[in-house]
Amino acid sequence: MAQHLLREIEQLKKRILALGATVESSVNKAVYAVEHRDTDAADKVIKGDKAIDQAEVDLEEDCLKVLALHQPVAIDLRFIVAVLKINNDLERIGDLSVNMAERAVFLASRPYINVPFDLNVSAEKAQQMVRQSLDSLVSLNAAMARDVCRMDDEVDGLNRSAFESVTRVIHAQPDHAETLIAYLSVSRYLERIADHATNIAEDVIYMIEGVIARHGAGPLRIQ
Amino acid sequence: MAQHLLREIEQLKKRILALGATVESSVNKAVYAVEHRDTDAADKVIKGDKAIDQAEVDLEEDCLKVLALHQPVAIDLRFIVAVLKINNDLERIGDLSVNMAERAVFLASRPYINVPFDLNVSAEKAQQMVRQSLDSLVSLNAAMARDVCRMDDEVDGLNRSAFESVTRVIHAQPDHAETLIAYLSVSRYLERIADHATNIAEDVIYMIEGVIARHGAGPLRIQ
Repeated sequence: MAQHLLREIEQLKKRILALGATVESSVNKAVYAVEHRDTDAADKVIKGDKAIDQAEVDLEEDCLKVLALHQPVAIDLRFIVAVLKINNDLERIGDLSVNMAERAVFLASRPYINVPFDLNVSAEKAQQMVRQSLDSLVSLNAAMARDVCRMDDEVDGLNRSAFESVTRVIHAQPDHAETLIAYLSVSRYLERIADHATNIAEDVIYMIEGVIARHGAGPLRIQ
Repeated sequence: MAQHLLREIEQLKKRILALGATVESSVNKAVYAVEHRDTDAADKVIKGDKAIDQAEVDLEEDCLKVLALHQPVAIDLRFIVAVLKINNDLERIGDLSVNMAERAVFLASRPYINVPFDLNVSAEKAQQMVRQSLDSLVSLNAAMARDVCRMDDEVDGLNRSAFESVTRVIHAQPDHAETLIAYLSVSRYLERIADHATNIAEDVIYMIEGVIARHGAGPLRIQ
């Protein structure tokens, strides 16, 4: 029985990582589509979302089956609940890359103007956070997960300064308001992707350490 | 044993509804703060978020305990997993009301200008969706939950038209760009609150009917 459960848990781990890889590549493509005004790449992101949605539904179903059949406790139970939640976050990151791809299509239809902030830095950082949050899950590395939580503040800061730059440029070029606000939306989507990566990292910490890392409550042993 | 489980499940139901009521009132206060430039109300929302965060952590812990001690299956298992997920959505709605309250503080510090779209309609609709998604959980009413999913399209539409109105007005009054974009942020936060209410409603449908209602997959019996 315990052997079976172990195998099932390994399976769940593989599948959440596979979903993570798919979602990561969706984010990459969406960022590329914005930067290169590439509507084909954007289209691939939009069409690919269905598979991500289905993978989420299937994985949740598998988690429920393992819970019902093997009735895990302690760390195994926590792991499965973490997978359930991470699954949810990954699906939403997928949705946000669709939102970015839609902005890419809109931006490609408008005359090109310079992005008034460094989109690359935010994109790089958000992607790194997604990657690292999943790495922390595979390697059960709480320090690595904590690093992701710290990076979230940087992305928030970048988004705030994007807001300031955009409003400044709108003052000077009000005719480009739609385009500028669309770029600002992309910055916000990246910030939300970073938020989801932070949620994943917090779930990993919580699972590993039985620590309530969420909401900045600090290291509080729960039992 | 079964009696115990029943009691625990009733307890979880009561607690998720109590959290729902707290979060609902936080959203109400945040909307009020934006509309009435009331920084005291905004401050209450911001300060109140800590209690919401703690309630989420506690409720998740209780769900894990019930899973470990009673090893529920079938509908009971689905109910607890639904509570775990709804708990997460409620906490994030709480965060979004804090975001709105922060925008309220910013807006109160700027000269008043007319909101170029009907903020009340979006606010009313989003609040109704949160209320109704929780009502559908209490009354186990899938039709009511489906109604919430339908309303989401309306809120998306309202947000899109807010975007158009805001960019139009920015063209005419670029000096008010910051204020106008802040109003647009409020519209977006309401749209995200509506999204979370939709997630809750989908979880309720999924639980009641064992149907994959998410991602528009239609009524598909899973076993």
